[in-house]
Amino acid sequence: MTPDAFLADFHAVARIGATPAGGVDRQAATPADRETREWFAAFAARRGWETRVDGIGNQFALVELVPGAPYVLLGSHLDSQPLGGRFDGAYGVIAALHAAERIAARVSGADAPADGPVYNLAVVNWFNEEGGRFAPSIMGSSVFAGIKDEAAMLDVRDLEGTSVREALSAIGYLGADERPAIAAYAEIHIEQGRLLERDGLPIGAVDRSWYTQKLDIEVLGEQSHTGATAMADRHDALLGAAQVITRVHEVTELFPPETLVSSVGQLTLEPNSPIVVARRVRLVADLRADDAAVVLEARDRLLRDIAEIADAYGLTITARDFDVRDNQHYPESGLALAEEAAAHLGLGARRIRTMAGHDSVAMNRIAPTVMLFIPSVDGVSHCEREYTSDADMVAGVEMLAEVGWRLVHGALQPETAPAPELAANA
Amino acid sequence: MTPDAFLADFHAVARIGATPAGGVDRQAATPADRETREWFAAFAARRGWETRVDGIGNQFALVELVPGAPYVLLGSHLDSQPLGGRFDGAYGVIAALHAAERIAARVSGADAPADGPVYNLAVVNWFNEEGGRFAPSIMGSSVFAGIKDEAAMLDVRDLEGTSVREALSAIGYLGADERPAIAAYAEIHIEQGRLLERDGLPIGAVDRSWYTQKLDIEVLGEQSHTGATAMADRHDALLGAAQVITRVHEVTELFPPETLVSSVGQLTLEPNSPIVVARRVRLVADLRADDAAVVLEARDRLLRDIAEIADAYGLTITARDFDVRDNQHYPESGLALAEEAAAHLGLGARRIRTMAGHDSVAMNRIAPTVMLFIPSVDGVSHCEREYTSDADMVAGVEMLAEVGWRLVHGALQPETAPAPELAANA
Repeated sequence: MTPDAFLADFHAVARIGATPAGGVDRQAATPADRETREWFAAFAARRGWETRVDGIGNQFALVELVPGAPYVLLGSHLDSQPLGGRFDGAYGVIAALHAAERIAARVSGADAPADGPVYNLAVVNWFNEEGGRFAPSIMGSSVFAGIKDEAAMLDVRDLEGTSVREALSAIGYLGADERPAIAAYAEIHIEQGRLLERDGLPIGAVDRSWYTQKLDIEVLGEQSHTGATAMADRHDALLGAAQVITRVHEVTELFPPETLVSSVGQLTLEPNSPIVVARRVRLVADLRADDAAVVLEARDRLLRDIAEIADAYGLTITARDFDVRDNQHYPESGLALAEEAAAHLGLGARRIRTMAGHDSVAMNRIAPTVMLFIPSVDGVSHCEREYTSDADMVAGVEMLAEVGWRLVHGALQPETAPAPELAANA
Repeated sequence: MTPDAFLADFHAVARIGATPAGGVDRQAATPADRETREWFAAFAARRGWETRVDGIGNQFALVELVPGAPYVLLGSHLDSQPLGGRFDGAYGVIAALHAAERIAARVSGADAPADGPVYNLAVVNWFNEEGGRFAPSIMGSSVFAGIKDEAAMLDVRDLEGTSVREALSAIGYLGADERPAIAAYAEIHIEQGRLLERDGLPIGAVDRSWYTQKLDIEVLGEQSHTGATAMADRHDALLGAAQVITRVHEVTELFPPETLVSSVGQLTLEPNSPIVVARRVRLVADLRADDAAVVLEARDRLLRDIAEIADAYGLTITARDFDVRDNQHYPESGLALAEEAAAHLGLGARRIRTMAGHDSVAMNRIAPTVMLFIPSVDGVSHCEREYTSDADMVAGVEMLAEVGWRLVHGALQPETAPAPELAANA
């Protein structure tokens, strides 16, 4: 791995599904998603690495270092939001490929330590982290981790009625390969917040994720003519939905600033005709806070608000809890490893929380996991103006290669303490 | 025409595109719309009537009574709203077919008056009256009347990007036949209001239409991550749209009850992902009142509200006037003709206004026009529970046949006074 080779690859992948304003549109299991997968497979093939695709479309490139040993997985996701940014996810996969190449070269290099690696290495491109087309998000890694059922996820449908199974088949990525046994996991991602930028630090070591949940809300009214129905006779589902959207926003104001974030990002309207009062609206509210109690208090308040709205507007409104995610604490040993690796490389680092979900949240349930951040300019993400500098990206690849190197040497074996001599040799 | 034959046909057509709750889903230029057109053509063919399809998909069945003369058109539309009712539009076309059959039989019957008809007769199924799939509504009759440009209408696209031209070609109904020259027009339709039901009257003679307009509103924010974006940094287009929807409703409360009706029935959201703050919302507001000044005052108030919302939520919101329709006054001579015909048949009638638009509004611009209503139970329409009794439908067919009879005999020739002897003979 050289910085130039990494940057050339990063900017090449950013051209797949590129949008005019500098973003990408590569939703899960679309033709653009297939193109990035073919790029990933070609990268591995040129280096003689075996590739596999599992039954939920996760794509692996295997770097054999220790025949028969389990794998340290490095990765993230190549799918994007509709009109998403070119860094979110893709950076982590491309960084992992280049970090893996560097680790493999070090293992076979002249100054390799006498004690060789104890694990194999694999790079992974998880299926449908974004969840923009198929809900829930973090789908492929959650199936890998056994948190979600594979068959149920294959049956999930997008708004056009296409199932995950059909969409993966259509792009040729509904696989059946054996999943690699996991020994440890590391992922690097843009922060999607402003803390590293504010503190002028290149690396964040993620200590825990926020508590998050969604509410799947259905508003049922009665279809009628916009022109010929008296206002008093209407049961307007969109008018009720507008009140729900407003309350989902206002509930954040009951807590100190930035304690709770919430919003409605998805809404479908039936029949969606300019001259018909809406019969049915379905919408998804997203609630997140570091403190679970804050989310639960906001949820209870919203359920009371929703009952009031239904009553006031003559509607039936139901709300169902969905995609509830507890705080996930990343292991202290992994945080210490990341901090040692950063110090060894001379990179400033701090501990940091993630408000967004990541594939590492799923992996952290089943294997020792290290989650790393690099800075995001203005903290923006899921949009075309998402931006991280080349220098910050290159520092992150070095950091991931160092962490991966330590992991394949067994630094996070759950049953033993980290081996300090590896840090000295690294 | 017998009542039984009419009712058998009406209920047969109601099975085309039927929905489980008793409605129909036959949006313009869909396969279900084609099926009703084929039914219409077969009805005409069995009677030896010529059928034509013009360049905007209007379908005509010509009943030749006076070779070379212009035509009295009777008709309405067979398309429906998504999950619409089985009466709106379809009743008027099927009533017109049966009325035409009765008029043709009377003309050639033994007790036909010495002075025969002066006009030919045609039944018309107008293209896309509903406007649910392709805006604006009242499309086919507006092109016929020269109010809308045919080429521009053929380029209109639905939300999936399909043009009117493509959709009509796909169902085989992009015609090129000559349009019949029009002498007069009559249409019968369900009221879509409660007045006839309240007054216990079977027939309404429409004296004028409400003033209506739409606002095409675009709300532009900035796409961002629902989880990782601070509330203060968001520019949430859907939150802004929710405020607009609320204001469009509340503006009606500034006027006496039922003076103004308004609503938002159509909304598209981008990117419509559960974990992305919306970038863009487009919505259509519909404003209607008998008094144009009320609509204009409400519109101005909404434009001020929209500017406030844009400012308060950090959004760019534009609103464009669209589909503005002045009050249309139906001719006094046509109202008198309808009242005489109803009295002749022993049917109670009253004058009435229409809040909804109709194809007759377009025809009234170019030819003497009579617009008739029959009762709607509970006044509901554009929904599956739309309902009118068989007896009311049958009375309406008799009424339309009587009005059509008088029209083909020149009762509404614009240049001459109605011929009183025809009324005596009818």
